[in-house]
Amino acid sequence: MIDFATNPEQYKHWKLSFDGPVATLAMDVQEDGGMVPGYELKLNSYDLGVDIELHDAIQRLRFEHPEVKCVIITSAKERVFCAGANISMLGASTHAHKVNFCKFTNETRNGMEDASEFSDQRYICLINGTAAGGGYELALAADYIMLIDDGASTVSLPEVPLLAVLPGTGGLTRVVDKRYVRRDRADYFCTLAEGIKGKRALDWNLVDELVPRSKLMETAKERAREFAAASSRPDDATGIELKPLQREITGDKITYRHLSATIDRDGRSAEVMILAPDAEPAQSIEDIHAAGVDFWPLDFARQLDDFILHMRANEGEISTWVIRSSGNADFVEAGDHALLDNADDWLVREITLFMKRTFKRIDVSSRSVITLVEPGSCFTGTLMEFVLAADRSFMLDGVMEGSNLPAPTLRPTGMNFGPLPMCNGITRLETRFLDDQEKIDGLQGAIGNDLEAEAADEFGLITFAPDDIDWEDEVRIAIEERASFSTDALTGMEASLRFAGPETLETKIFGRLSAWQNWIFQRPNAVGEEGALKLYGTGKQSNFDKNRV
Amino acid sequence: MIDFATNPEQYKHWKLSFDGPVATLAMDVQEDGGMVPGYELKLNSYDLGVDIELHDAIQRLRFEHPEVKCVIITSAKERVFCAGANISMLGASTHAHKVNFCKFTNETRNGMEDASEFSDQRYICLINGTAAGGGYELALAADYIMLIDDGASTVSLPEVPLLAVLPGTGGLTRVVDKRYVRRDRADYFCTLAEGIKGKRALDWNLVDELVPRSKLMETAKERAREFAAASSRPDDATGIELKPLQREITGDKITYRHLSATIDRDGRSAEVMILAPDAEPAQSIEDIHAAGVDFWPLDFARQLDDFILHMRANEGEISTWVIRSSGNADFVEAGDHALLDNADDWLVREITLFMKRTFKRIDVSSRSVITLVEPGSCFTGTLMEFVLAADRSFMLDGVMEGSNLPAPTLRPTGMNFGPLPMCNGITRLETRFLDDQEKIDGLQGAIGNDLEAEAADEFGLITFAPDDIDWEDEVRIAIEERASFSTDALTGMEASLRFAGPETLETKIFGRLSAWQNWIFQRPNAVGEEGALKLYGTGKQSNFDKNRV
Repeated sequence: MIDFATNPEQYKHWKLSFDGPVATLAMDVQEDGGMVPGYELKLNSYDLGVDIELHDAIQRLRFEHPEVKCVIITSAKERVFCAGANISMLGASTHAHKVNFCKFTNETRNGMEDASEFSDQRYICLINGTAAGGGYELALAADYIMLIDDGASTVSLPEVPLLAVLPGTGGLTRVVDKRYVRRDRADYFCTLAEGIKGKRALDWNLVDELVPRSKLMETAKERAREFAAASSRPDDATGIELKPLQREITGDKITYRHLSATIDRDGRSAEVMILAPDAEPAQSIEDIHAAGVDFWPLDFARQLDDFILHMRANEGEISTWVIRSSGNADFVEAGDHALLDNADDWLVREITLFMKRTFKRIDVSSRSVITLVEPGSCFTGTLMEFVLAADRSFMLDGVMEGSNLPAPTLRPTGMNFGPLPMCNGITRLETRFLDDQEKIDGLQGAIGNDLEAEAADEFGLITFAPDDIDWEDEVRIAIEERASFSTDALTGMEASLRFAGPETLETKIFGRLSAWQNWIFQRPNAVGEEGALKLYGTGKQSNFDKNRV
Repeated sequence: MIDFATNPEQYKHWKLSFDGPVATLAMDVQEDGGMVPGYELKLNSYDLGVDIELHDAIQRLRFEHPEVKCVIITSAKERVFCAGANISMLGASTHAHKVNFCKFTNETRNGMEDASEFSDQRYICLINGTAAGGGYELALAADYIMLIDDGASTVSLPEVPLLAVLPGTGGLTRVVDKRYVRRDRADYFCTLAEGIKGKRALDWNLVDELVPRSKLMETAKERAREFAAASSRPDDATGIELKPLQREITGDKITYRHLSATIDRDGRSAEVMILAPDAEPAQSIEDIHAAGVDFWPLDFARQLDDFILHMRANEGEISTWVIRSSGNADFVEAGDHALLDNADDWLVREITLFMKRTFKRIDVSSRSVITLVEPGSCFTGTLMEFVLAADRSFMLDGVMEGSNLPAPTLRPTGMNFGPLPMCNGITRLETRFLDDQEKIDGLQGAIGNDLEAEAADEFGLITFAPDDIDWEDEVRIAIEERASFSTDALTGMEASLRFAGPETLETKIFGRLSAWQNWIFQRPNAVGEEGALKLYGTGKQSNFDKNRV
């Protein structure tokens, strides 16, 4: 089982150090520290285990270190920065693992950009040796790239010429769409196995600065302090320790404090139950900080995040997530108010951004999401995003016969109108009503109102509103039918329907780039017995089908 | 060999008729008229042959019928509009044919939207029976969709539930991004094999109007006349007949009047030579109309278009197109001036739009493009787009020893600054210099100037500028290296690097949607021995791998 929980004391591959507002995250991959046996992580090449630590470090830098305003990513090894994803690992991996690995590494790099853009925690990448493939792609996620000027160290994206696959962690997209490298130069660069160094790397904007070996860390620190000086992060705040999350997995049941799930293996689905807080969450900044990881929105986001990652990595056959909720909607609403009313506070900002990133993971999870709004549920504000993120939702119209629970309601809060945008840069409501701003305006007027099924339907928030006579059959059939379809077709369909509207670097990476990479990950030229990914390092020559598709 | 040339007298599958400003294009697919033996085109299902006729009709409606302001697409069959792409044909096709088929059908439907948006020739789709899959996708390309209200006829996208593939002709994208169908409704619709009819189809915006059987054509004509009344197309202009194109194919040589190509099968490349006009093209509107298809820009666009389609369909192993030009740059420039100076004329507008669409085909052709700017070349204005569309370009710096030809130049014209946008809605120059409007402004100041290699390099127009000592080796190595790479990796890389900047319906279709479809077209759930596409119609049940990727 792949576990995404770790902490700095357990890191095998990264060294985290602090110097006032500047943190340094040094990659020092342990060769024999691979997640599974069968490959050696030479030359700072990485597998999912290395990236899980990177992801953990990035999260902790945001929450535990409000004083850190700039992070320098570098290598602790001599003459090599990072050789990218480990090829033997990729060559031996299943298609599903490769795709999931790329998805997580992409999210982690997007997270670095999120920290920079929204948390004023900038990233400098100090390339102190060769940066190849995923190594250079890691650098591309930083705000500022510094390259050692030693006449030898290059940056490169050698995937196409050496491995017959794409740079799968956003490299192609970022080269032309973030660093604005001219497309013909990008083409040349991406087919040049040996990469580009020195002045040409700078002239082509592949890096931002060249630094002599003798002044590497000195210059990086200087730049980092310049970035830090412009940051809005507080100097004297106290971080919130991301203590280990409580999770219990027994058989087909996964239980967190506010989220539990039961897996129906025959039905290929997971029944997920979201629980509202047991009491009103902290409301004042002081109380929120005092509550720390126990503050409901943060606690819940961590549980949801871990659950998504766990399901993706370990439960590939569970194709549909059926989401319910239960509890006091007032407490959920209070949690939203706490976030909205204290949006200027650094910690509250971090929590909201984390919630945003976690919901974004749902959108790119290649799992069908069906949300059920039943009596006793609390799909309010932040939790209403589960209804908006769903491929399909059902809301009971009225009450269940024989139950004394009142009819279920949806209750929008300010969280639905801005703080939780999707990868496409706009909210789920804006994506839902691309052509109909009036619908959004109307709903904004209903903030805090309890909307029963008829009103929710009128507002376009739910797909279907069966009454108690039809409820069970309709829901059962929808879930069963979903399980009967080809999972691949569902993935392609969902990826196409979920992201109407504008496109961003992120949607380009998850849509265009990842889709092409997934295609290539199936092609004999890459993964066949004579494919480049299979034969890499054996000395044997690939035998390509030369047909163009 | 697949030939894209046809004309209304040869149509087997479509009936074209005229009624003043309204044309009717009625689909009447001949069951035994498939392009290759082995399948029957039942229920107005189509193969590439059917779509080649549709494409031809759409082109002719624009050029030969300036008086047509609205086109009604309907079916000549009873109770069926169109059953979409023929499944047996798809099931029996190679991966490459499926992908190429989808690409061409996509371009044809994008062409309908282009006619509507830019030529004021609107499309109404009159769905007079069942419209399934590609049948409904054809309707989605129209401005206005009318559905017979007979209690039986539905619109549907049943690909996911029935065939384990995607609606591959833009359906998913257009449902959410053009018709703004809510994503959860779109999800439901796209998994509903039997489709949606009547009032729900209207309420969900899947169609624009319901019409009783008795008033079908009457109402359609009425709507068509309403659209026609708002059109800027001329009432009394005379169309230009698209006479057959002269083309000779002998062995590895393809020859048109202004374009010839020699195929190097071992090298997997085609050496393409573009020829400038032999004399100054017509300049006045009268002369342009009198020249008709012999007017150089139109003549050349037709040749280039046919060449691209031919190479894609028939020469899949020719992975690189090496493009040269030869002739008098002044004549090319004069052709551009003729287009720019008469941009308001309906025919000139059509020619420019056709040139735009043709260059767009290059961008999505999944072929590497290397452009060579040599002495004697004429990469001026419109032809300079071959330099900008290239993945890589080489321009000789200076002259060739022993030759009395002067150093080659590039000469920008107004055609490079607006009339020929890419699928992403902006010009190749804007895409090239996304972050640098100054570069574009500077180049605009050099319109009409001859830029030698140093200046062209300074302006960022070319990739490399070797001198005559290095030229041959540099160019040869680039072409040979290209041929050594995996064609699949090249396709994915080129698709990612070519479209920096904004995304549009078109780039979404060619990027996100097509890439996912290509992936799915490789998956056993669709195309394996027990895949849905293979077993469709046999009565056997597919056996899906249920893992989510």
